[in-house]
Amino acid sequence: MTDRISTALTYAEEHHDNTLSGFKDFLRIRSVSSMPEHDADMTVAAQWLVKRMNEIGMKRVEIFPTLGHPIVYGECLDAGADKPTVLIYGHYDVQKPDPLEDWNSDPFEPTTVGDNLYARGVSDNKGDIVAALAALGALDNTGGLPINVKLMFEGEEEVATGNLPPFLDAQRELLSCDFCLNVDGGMHAEGIPSIDYSLRGMALFWLEVNGPRQDIHSGQYGGTVQNPIHVLSGLIAKLHDENGRIAVPGIYDDVRPLGEDERTLLAKAGKDEAYFLEASGVPALWGDPDYTPVERVGARPTCEVLMFKAGEEKTAITASAKALISFRLVPDQKPEEIHRQFDDFIAANMPPTVTWTLTYRGGSNASVMDLDSPYLQTLSRTLETVWGQPPVYGRVGGGIPVVAALAQQLGIQTVLTGVSLPDDNFHGPNEKIHLPSWRGGIKVLIHYFVELAN
Amino acid sequence: MTDRISTALTYAEEHHDNTLSGFKDFLRIRSVSSMPEHDADMTVAAQWLVKRMNEIGMKRVEIFPTLGHPIVYGECLDAGADKPTVLIYGHYDVQKPDPLEDWNSDPFEPTTVGDNLYARGVSDNKGDIVAALAALGALDNTGGLPINVKLMFEGEEEVATGNLPPFLDAQRELLSCDFCLNVDGGMHAEGIPSIDYSLRGMALFWLEVNGPRQDIHSGQYGGTVQNPIHVLSGLIAKLHDENGRIAVPGIYDDVRPLGEDERTLLAKAGKDEAYFLEASGVPALWGDPDYTPVERVGARPTCEVLMFKAGEEKTAITASAKALISFRLVPDQKPEEIHRQFDDFIAANMPPTVTWTLTYRGGSNASVMDLDSPYLQTLSRTLETVWGQPPVYGRVGGGIPVVAALAQQLGIQTVLTGVSLPDDNFHGPNEKIHLPSWRGGIKVLIHYFVELAN
Repeated sequence: MTDRISTALTYAEEHHDNTLSGFKDFLRIRSVSSMPEHDADMTVAAQWLVKRMNEIGMKRVEIFPTLGHPIVYGECLDAGADKPTVLIYGHYDVQKPDPLEDWNSDPFEPTTVGDNLYARGVSDNKGDIVAALAALGALDNTGGLPINVKLMFEGEEEVATGNLPPFLDAQRELLSCDFCLNVDGGMHAEGIPSIDYSLRGMALFWLEVNGPRQDIHSGQYGGTVQNPIHVLSGLIAKLHDENGRIAVPGIYDDVRPLGEDERTLLAKAGKDEAYFLEASGVPALWGDPDYTPVERVGARPTCEVLMFKAGEEKTAITASAKALISFRLVPDQKPEEIHRQFDDFIAANMPPTVTWTLTYRGGSNASVMDLDSPYLQTLSRTLETVWGQPPVYGRVGGGIPVVAALAQQLGIQTVLTGVSLPDDNFHGPNEKIHLPSWRGGIKVLIHYFVELAN
Repeated sequence: MTDRISTALTYAEEHHDNTLSGFKDFLRIRSVSSMPEHDADMTVAAQWLVKRMNEIGMKRVEIFPTLGHPIVYGECLDAGADKPTVLIYGHYDVQKPDPLEDWNSDPFEPTTVGDNLYARGVSDNKGDIVAALAALGALDNTGGLPINVKLMFEGEEEVATGNLPPFLDAQRELLSCDFCLNVDGGMHAEGIPSIDYSLRGMALFWLEVNGPRQDIHSGQYGGTVQNPIHVLSGLIAKLHDENGRIAVPGIYDDVRPLGEDERTLLAKAGKDEAYFLEASGVPALWGDPDYTPVERVGARPTCEVLMFKAGEEKTAITASAKALISFRLVPDQKPEEIHRQFDDFIAANMPPTVTWTLTYRGGSNASVMDLDSPYLQTLSRTLETVWGQPPVYGRVGGGIPVVAALAQQLGIQTVLTGVSLPDDNFHGPNEKIHLPSWRGGIKVLIHYFVELAN
């Protein structure tokens, strides 16, 4: 270990209580991007980041407004032109905490139980942002940053990153870099690092079915007016065939086939049927029998209804029924093409008793990273140094729209890292972070930033 | 017209402003029985009734607590043993006002526009209660009541009347009467009276489908865990066949066939396809092609999903999906039998990827009244006297559980009346009452109570 690394690690350890205390302050900010009543909290979270960036020696710190929530930017390019420039990405917005009644503690009052810290956003993605800032702060205070750093933290990752692409287009020069380190990744398991090299894209829709002009008495009209809930349910029932394949015609046309070598690599990750059963708690798995569960999650498109909202607790036939429907995409599917196919599918399957509207809420391509990139290889070695074992390689079922946008718009490749564990319940109740893993993540980044300079 | 009638009519006219003002006070009370936050309002509404009953000379006025909302009772038996005793039934609870954004005025601030008064509960059923009390008050103040009267106003009609049956069993003697006049009926159209002689029953259920032990990330698990929304939608899609008939095996076994004479009587009501299209605003009707719309509403069972509630606006597979499902029943179906058949149907159609629970929320039999009853025949003549034309006879698609309960438990037959018009939007937004019809309803009841004594 170089002196550079060891002195920074010591600094980080000595200041860990401060780091943790600031982390908790950050977690108390209710930066829920999907809820307009939290718009002011989004600003507070952005300002928290500005303050922290200034503390760790960033030279240009700025809040960029967007049509939605702002993007927080900071940079320090003092390492010199012969050192790499890394663009560090994270998001400071969090998912809604609902259902609140399923939380064991207040989602916005960080609560420690054993080795875990519970709060909304603690794992996705505030913990990794705070870890990156702590690693940079430790290096800044023990001789300065060994590499050039640009920080870009967005506030709309949980609402599909819709306002980031125009920002990327407008700020090509500001964002120029050697690669993007995206800290919205995770670990394979406690003590087992991983590198996820593939992400799914998404196409997101609201589908609304409209029947009677207003809610009408279910006794006076039942039997003559088709219920919009029945119609929407019928359409959802047709989305998959009996084998769990998506039944929208053409949807698999552009899917890049999975090679045998990759199937072998993915099988090594050890996420078998028993893992998915245990992790989810369902009595039986489901899905296309031609693929293993880990292949279905990582390399096949899926369709999920995220929300179905219709009717009230009263004896009326509702005027309308709405569903939020998402498709997870794999290379080389295109969201716009999925939109067209889905629209055709709905038109072909909707009865004449209702009207309907399909609203495209945005989308992103899937992405696959270059396994031979030096930045990824350096991360791999760093992870092995800190955790004592080489990383597991995986395809992620989720998506991070910025990864696709950076590649498509600016030609910037991404390397993913992070300290989330699979049981961290991000997007669900009782989201947590495993504190020893988080502490390890700070170490990894100190090592990594120094090694990148060598 | 007897002097008795004309003096009471004059009294009612002279005091009409007072009656209307009190009516508005009653409408301002948010007596929504399905919302626990309005429990205190239910008590306020009950107390309003007590005060009004005392004002019109009821001799015994009492609030009977139940496990839910109270029943308000009052009586005046001064007419003597040779006069009939009528039990007048109404309900002071109202439906939820949601969706609030579809109202043109505050649902709890009565608003007059032209001939109509808008408010939640104005038509269903507060208007008819106030009309009955006004008619009784006019007679009480002009010589006393010509018949013996018992008043029973419940607070749980909109939540299936679950606590009324034990009250009926416990108060057989108190409630003994010649017949029940239920003022929760309506009119065929403006100026056209009607007598509805048949009501549908109901069986009401919550069905909950449970998948993962908590909401889980739709990317990490999509493709391996079957989504409870998809499963519940699939089940709802199977509830009807392609002709709109209920697909639950055995459900039509006990349905009393509709005779040709009744089909002729129902056809006279003039509610054809064009009527249902116009009244509902749907682009096309739906339902069993072997029956006309009015037959499907009045004489055939139906199944409606009233509410589908699942998921949040976030990219997660929800842990559970819930639907509130109602069956409208006709003679001679039994709710308990429907429960058994529905449970069997669900068990046969639910996949092994989820668990589920079916909760029976209560039910009631359908009921058909004796068209030859003297009380019904007297009402028919009274309606013709006031409105200038004989009533239209109809079967109602909705149900009033108390009608079935009174018949089954106490052997009491019901005659239905009321002033609601079909376009009054009860259970929907912008519920209204047509004020001239309401005023006519007070006249009808003054006539009727005097004629019953002759």
